[in-house]
Order: sequence, then structure tokens, then C-alpha cells
Amino acid sequence: MIYELYYWTGIPGRGEFVRLALEDAGADYVDVCRERGDALMDAFLSGEHEHALPFAPPFLRAGRLLIAQTAAILDYLGQHLGLVPEGEARRIQANQLQLTIADLVAEVHDSHHPVAARLYYEDQQVEAARRAADLRQHRLPKYLGYFERVLERADGRHALGSPSYVDLSLFQLLAGLHYAFPRAMARLRPGLPRLHALAEEVAARPRIAAYLASPRRLPFNESGIFRHYPALDDAA
Amino acid sequence: MIYELYYWTGIPGRGEFVRLALEDAGADYVDVCRERGDALMDAFLSGEHEHALPFAPPFLRAGRLLIAQTAAILDYLGQHLGLVPEGEARRIQANQLQLTIADLVAEVHDSHHPVAARLYYEDQQVEAARRAADLRQHRLPKYLGYFERVLERADGRHALGSPSYVDLSLFQLLAGLHYAFPRAMARLRPGLPRLHALAEEVAARPRIAAYLASPRRLPFNESGIFRHYPALDDAA
Repeated sequence: MIYELYYWTGIPGRGEFVRLALEDAGADYVDVCRERGDALMDAFLSGEHEHALPFAPPFLRAGRLLIAQTAAILDYLGQHLGLVPEGEARRIQANQLQLTIADLVAEVHDSHHPVAARLYYEDQQVEAARRAADLRQHRLPKYLGYFERVLERADGRHALGSPSYVDLSLFQLLAGLHYAFPRAMARLRPGLPRLHALAEEVAARPRIAAYLASPRRLPFNESGIFRHYPALDDAA
Repeated sequence: MIYELYYWTGIPGRGEFVRLALEDAGADYVDVCRERGDALMDAFLSGEHEHALPFAPPFLRAGRLLIAQTAAILDYLGQHLGLVPEGEARRIQANQLQLTIADLVAEVHDSHHPVAARLYYEDQQVEAARRAADLRQHRLPKYLGYFERVLERADGRHALGSPSYVDLSLFQLLAGLHYAFPRAMARLRPGLPRLHALAEEVAARPRIAAYLASPRRLPFNESGIFRHYPALDDAA
């Protein structure tokens, strides 16, 4: 099976959670927009494919299936690429953790776009300052403290007690948060030892290490979800 | 199987999407907080149950499984209660539509709480006015136009071409939006004939009609996700 990943070029964004799973499993995949241009993705989004109408990227083509929504893609890939432990309970647990990560990712996006995704950050800076402060003071400790506790209650090293795509997503989440909010994350880090050990372990996995060193890995930037605006971080 | 639904009392919120599925299937369930108080839910959230640590309600207990996240619960119930057509492709399609509904529900919540969920609406009214205007002018037409098109491309009457839990969720979504934004929805309604026909059909399903007429159905109110603040609706 050669998977086709459809996502915006130029930002890691939500597509990166899928990319990490494909890379970690050593799966054969085409990063369609980056390798073949945007037109193929646009055709799906504008409804030219009779049996598939995704609302937004990322989406994945897997044979005759077209799967949209990051968590749904990972639920599928987890089972087909061996990135989730066997059994219904574990699969469901992975999915609900991924959905909770997705909720935080959406909150991070809205910290720089609290009014409207279609407007520039510069047009909502005042609102962003208020929302980002709440994110740093309340939401990040709540979510990250939760994930730390999940690790603690499992084997201390993996979200499900053994490796899964959720670990890859937690790595990406921490990477993005350290990029966007370096001061706030430095403050929170001492309380999150297991999450940070997990992130280091994921980065050292042979296929992930090779991927991170390759040009396939896109850097974070100020067009994506995780943006570094110093005004939105803790005061220096 | 007697299911146990855990959700806040007093608001329909995200729990209502689960309740509609249980009611439509005629499933045996306990609405735990409403029937037995909040302490049992709090015990899960504070981590007193060794094998389950949900981040937030709603969550469902199904035998030995504890499932959090609305879309994950519905994916599970859909298969076990016959609320989704057979086959992997249909199950995945239902899940991704439900996740897209969940994305809109989160945006609706943030239209009255664009800064912080933990603050009162009155503390973020200025920001809410800007965000709600964008929701009414851009996001609702985009999302609802998408769902209308999904219906059009299926059988015109059901999201998946035959009845599923997604239809129930679209009914709830429309009900909430008409409650919260009556003027904006009156403006959008002519462009959404299939969605509105679907909502009427769902409301007339015998078990749903009986449920809606019962005290189990909670009214929308200004503590929930769908809130009616005239200042956030279209101008009169």
C-alpha cells in the first residue's frame, strides 16, 4: 500500500502528526502537495471526487478509502501500521488521547487567532494577548499535567504503557509548544519530567531521528499552528 | 448492557450528542450525574479509578470500557447499537463527519468565550462580539454549506445515505444553532433545505419524539455551549 497524504505545503501543522506516524512505521507514502502540487488536493476539496468530500486537510488516501480528520487518520493508521497495541480498549484509549491532543492544538491555534482564522494575527493582537495569557497560565498546565499523569499511571514512559502513535503526537505537541512559548515551557518543564523524557526517546527512535534530520521535516514557522510571537509568551 | 453516561447536569452540551444516540437506539442507560449525583463522575476525573483517567466529560462506561471524547463514544456506540452502516469506509466516514461537527461545536462555544472558558461571558463581551460576527458571516455558512452538500451527494436525506448517529448529531447542531442565533439561522435557512428536512425527520422518529417530549430532554440555556445572547446574533 502506498499512502497519499494531502496537506498544505510550507507548514507542519496538523499534517505533521500523520507524517510522524507514517515515518515511524517506515510506510510508503507520497506527500502529495509537496511532491505533485496543490491541484490534486484542491480537486478533493472542491468535490470533484464522487465518493469523497473532506472538509479540510489533512486527509489520507489509503487504497479506496479517503480519510479526513487527523485523529481518524491516526486511528486507521495505528491499526494498519502496528502503531497501537492490540485490543479494542487500547485502540479507544489511543483515540481519546489523540482527540484530547487535538483539542489542545486547536486552543494553541486560537491563542494567536482568537477572533477569526481568516484574519491576520496583526488584526487580533489585543485579543490574542488575553487568550494566550490564559493558555499559558491555565490551559497548558491543565492539559500537560493531564498527559504527565497519563504517563505516570501507565509505565511512566509511554502513553499506553507501550509505544504507540500517541507518543509521536505528544513529541510533536511538546516540540511545537517549546517553539511557540519557550519561556512558558521552561517554567512548566520541571513539573513534566515524563513528558520530556518521552519526547527525547521519540526523537532518538532511528526512523524518527533520520526523518528529523531530513528535508522532509518542515520547520515551525509563523504561518502554522505553533507560532513564536514573543508578545504571546511569558514576560522575559 | 446498561451504559452509564457521565456528564454535567443542567446543560445539554456535548453530552446531548451521546444521549440522542442512546435514546434513538432504545438503549438501557443511566444518566449518572442526574440520577445519582456528581460524586461518581468526580471520582473518575480525579483519577480514583485505576484504569481510566478521562480528561473531561462526557464519558461513557460500557462494561469494562471507559470511553471519553464525544466522537469516540459515538464511534463505539454506532457500531454496538447499529447506528452506523456496516463496513469500515462508512464507519470512518461517520467518524470524520462527527469530528467536523465537533469542530464547529467548539467554535460555537468560543463565540461566547473567545478568551477563556473559565471567565464569564460578561468579561469577554467585546471579543465575543467580534468572534461571533465572524462565526455568523463566515464559519456557519462554510460548515453548514458543507453538511448540506454532504447530504446532497448522499441520498439527499441522510449524511451517510442511510440513517446513522451523524443524522442525530446534525439535528442537535441545527437545534442549538437556531436557539443561539435565530436571526442568523433564519437568514441561512433557505440555502440549507436538506439539513432542515433531516432535522424534522429526526425529530419525528418515534423514540426521538418521545424523548424530546420527556423531562429527560434538557432545554438549551445560557450555561451551555449554545447560548442565546441577542448581541451575538445578526442585528434585528
